[in-house]
Amino acid sequence: MYSLTVSDHVMIAHSLAGAVFGPAQRLHGATYVVEVEFRRAGLDANGLVCDIGRALQALRDVLAPLNLNNLDAIPEFRGRNTTTEFLAGEIFRRMAARVADGAIGPGTAGEIDAMRVVLRESPVAWAAFEGPLR
Amino acid sequence: MYSLTVSDHVMIAHSLAGAVFGPAQRLHGATYVVEVEFRRAGLDANGLVCDIGRALQALRDVLAPLNLNNLDAIPEFRGRNTTTEFLAGEIFRRMAARVADGAIGPGTAGEIDAMRVVLRESPVAWAAFEGPLR
Amino acid sequence: MYSLTVSDHVMIAHSLAGAVFGPAQRLHGATYVVEVEFRRAGLDANGLVCDIGRALQALRDVLAPLNLNNLDAIPEFRGRNTTTEFLAGEIFRRMAARVADGAIGPGTAGEIDAMRVVLRESPVAWAAFEGPLR
Amino acid sequence: MYSLTVSDHVMIAHSLAGAVFGPAQRLHGATYVVEVEFRRAGLDANGLVCDIGRALQALRDVLAPLNLNNLDAIPEFRGRNTTTEFLAGEIFRRMAARVADGAIGPGTAGEIDAMRVVLRESPVAWAAFEGPLR
Amino acid sequence: MYSLTVSDHVMIAHSLAGAVFGPAQRLHGATYVVEVEFRRAGLDANGLVCDIGRALQALRDVLAPLNLNNLDAIPEFRGRNTTTEFLAGEIFRRMAARVADGAIGPGTAGEIDAMRVVLRESPVAWAAFEGPLR
Amino acid sequence: MYSLTVSDHVMIAHSLAGAVFGPAQRLHGATYVVEVEFRRAGLDANGLVCDIGRALQALRDVLAPLNLNNLDAIPEFRGRNTTTEFLAGEIFRRMAARVADGAIGPGTAGEIDAMRVVLRESPVAWAAFEGPLR
Repeated sequence: MYSLTVSDHVMIAHSLAGAVFGPAQRLHGATYVVEVEFRRAGLDANGLVCDIGRALQALRDVLAPLNLNNLDAIPEFRGRNTTTEFLAGEIFRRMAARVADGAIGPGTAGEIDAMRVVLRESPVAWAAFEGPLR
Repeated sequence: MYSLTVSDHVMIAHSLAGAVFGPAQRLHGATYVVEVEFRRAGLDANGLVCDIGRALQALRDVLAPLNLNNLDAIPEFRGRNTTTEFLAGEIFRRMAARVADGAIGPGTAGEIDAMRVVLRESPVAWAAFEGPLR
Repeated sequence: MYSLTVSDHVMIAHSLAGAVFGPAQRLHGATYVVEVEFRRAGLDANGLVCDIGRALQALRDVLAPLNLNNLDAIPEFRGRNTTTEFLAGEIFRRMAARVADGAIGPGTAGEIDAMRVVLRESPVAWAAFEGPLR
Repeated sequence: MYSLTVSDHVMIAHSLAGAVFGPAQRLHGATYVVEVEFRRAGLDANGLVCDIGRALQALRDVLAPLNLNNLDAIPEFRGRNTTTEFLAGEIFRRMAARVADGAIGPGTAGEIDAMRVVLRESPVAWAAFEGPLR
Repeated sequence: MYSLTVSDHVMIAHSLAGAVFGPAQRLHGATYVVEVEFRRAGLDANGLVCDIGRALQALRDVLAPLNLNNLDAIPEFRGRNTTTEFLAGEIFRRMAARVADGAIGPGTAGEIDAMRVVLRESPVAWAAFEGPLR
Repeated sequence: MYSLTVSDHVMIAHSLAGAVFGPAQRLHGATYVVEVEFRRAGLDANGLVCDIGRALQALRDVLAPLNLNNLDAIPEFRGRNTTTEFLAGEIFRRMAARVADGAIGPGTAGEIDAMRVVLRESPVAWAAFEGPLR
């Protein structure tokens, strides 16, 4: 199994509802370093899992509506806790839609077997979501 | 599959018995950066794999009896080589017991599907143990 | 010249006023990895610049009122842009007061010649403030 | 499942053929930080997945013919795009042959269940190949 | 003294002339992670050393003619060994010209006291050039 | 001012005498990642601060008597606390003697203006010693 991973980052504000969050119930923020791994059984005719430039652009596009924003004010997230693990899942779902649309390469859509999305929130904590694409 | 990983470190002395270890048969030491990944199929009602604060505390508690110690003098390790991979397995087993006891959250015990423990001993070598929790 | 550096981190929300900030004028946030370097010409009788444990605790105490907060709501920062470089200077000043109070060791107050505070906001940007302590 | 990972690096030149590569069609180069993970169900009598020193030496030997070279001039790679993911697969195959030859320990050959090879080409892109050894 | 640092990277091929370089006399390559630190005594009215976005863009512009190229074929470098330390100096000089031109902000030109440019070529070696700007 | 930095690591055991050290009075250990920076006003005829290969070898030679040892048993350290900052100074002095002996290049001895030695003991603490060489 081959894989290719690309990385970018976002800087966001949010708050988390529930006593379990303690002081993180207050409005605070994070720099999330985001990694997306694309897994594929074989390489294409160019020797690629997918084009790195397209993969980086697709990730940038997915992150754009989050970056430099307050997640508490984004309608899709209303009533949800935007925990690091939830966001990993959400970015996975948005990237999966891009892959299906051919954003990382027209011949790539049906070829990526699985993805893994990692969000690093600090030197001591990070979260991930992974799953099959087909 | 979601996951959450937390990290801490310990500074220990030990020696390793067996010609294969060469100069590492001498008493020496290591800083181990320890990462514990908790894997879970879905998130809880708060949007969490588990509480980061509790996970960090559980890891700190598991590492406390090792930290700033000579592993050669710890009774449980008598007659064992405390290699990096052995320690990864040992920390896995101790963390698994904590998870079962509800240390990372009362509703978490039966929900964590698997864990992975990584110990980084230098910029060029690290070891891990992973396995199911149920 | 000897030096000792300790590191911790905070997760904050803030916004920045002024057209130069573009989208960062919106409420957003950051994880700041904070490093404080203490410089000293010679070592004390124990062979130390200062006690690492005390230095880490002093840094934690200085960071506590910022951590998991919205900097826009902190009275001391009213009317100030809490840029990364401004915060580096502010943390420098607060750490300097701690050093003067003996927080990193009773005999250390007059011995630390200079400090450098670094705040890392993302993999591609960080800021610092350094200056003499006497 | 236990694992041990060792790391080294190479500095190479190459070019990549195909319009998808854009400016990377020109002769350019990379520092690849290479990680090889060895996976094994149980530990040997010494408490090891395999000897770290031997594993590092085997990796160094596999990387030697690539290091400080122009991959375009290496006969085995003629007509192939030496993409990061292709090289991960190639280093996997060469390491697998070393493991089978007993290079990482005479008793290790049949015991390593799987390997994973990662090549980091920049802070924002890396590739991997993983597969079973038996 | 305040400072702001921004980072980017390039992937280049080159060869180095002289017996001291041993196998690095052959055509090979490198990923250079490049950091540029801007030092300034005080902050501007916005609380900035300079605008991070402009600084990143200026660095990208300076690196563009090097990136994904064979440095041996660049006319300005004819007859020069493009060692890591030489390139650090060269990027310093090109960035200094940009700063003087107002590329990192119209009011910044005369305010930056000094710069430091670091090029990281591998996990075990990096080089830098630093100097005053006025 | 140009500089070149090389890095290696050692794994040692030691204990520290004095109530200030708390639990670190016990025998424990550390992985020290060691960086040595060589500073020089101009480059040599090859475009170098010094040969990276020789610098790495000189560092390896200086670290060899410490690596995989118990520092408490090394005669030169008897009665001294081998704190991270003390070791940074000690490695500085030993590297300085190597530089003076021509170990990093015969023409380099009188040309290196200053050195800085950093020892990283954990993700949250490191120490350094720097000083002039002439």
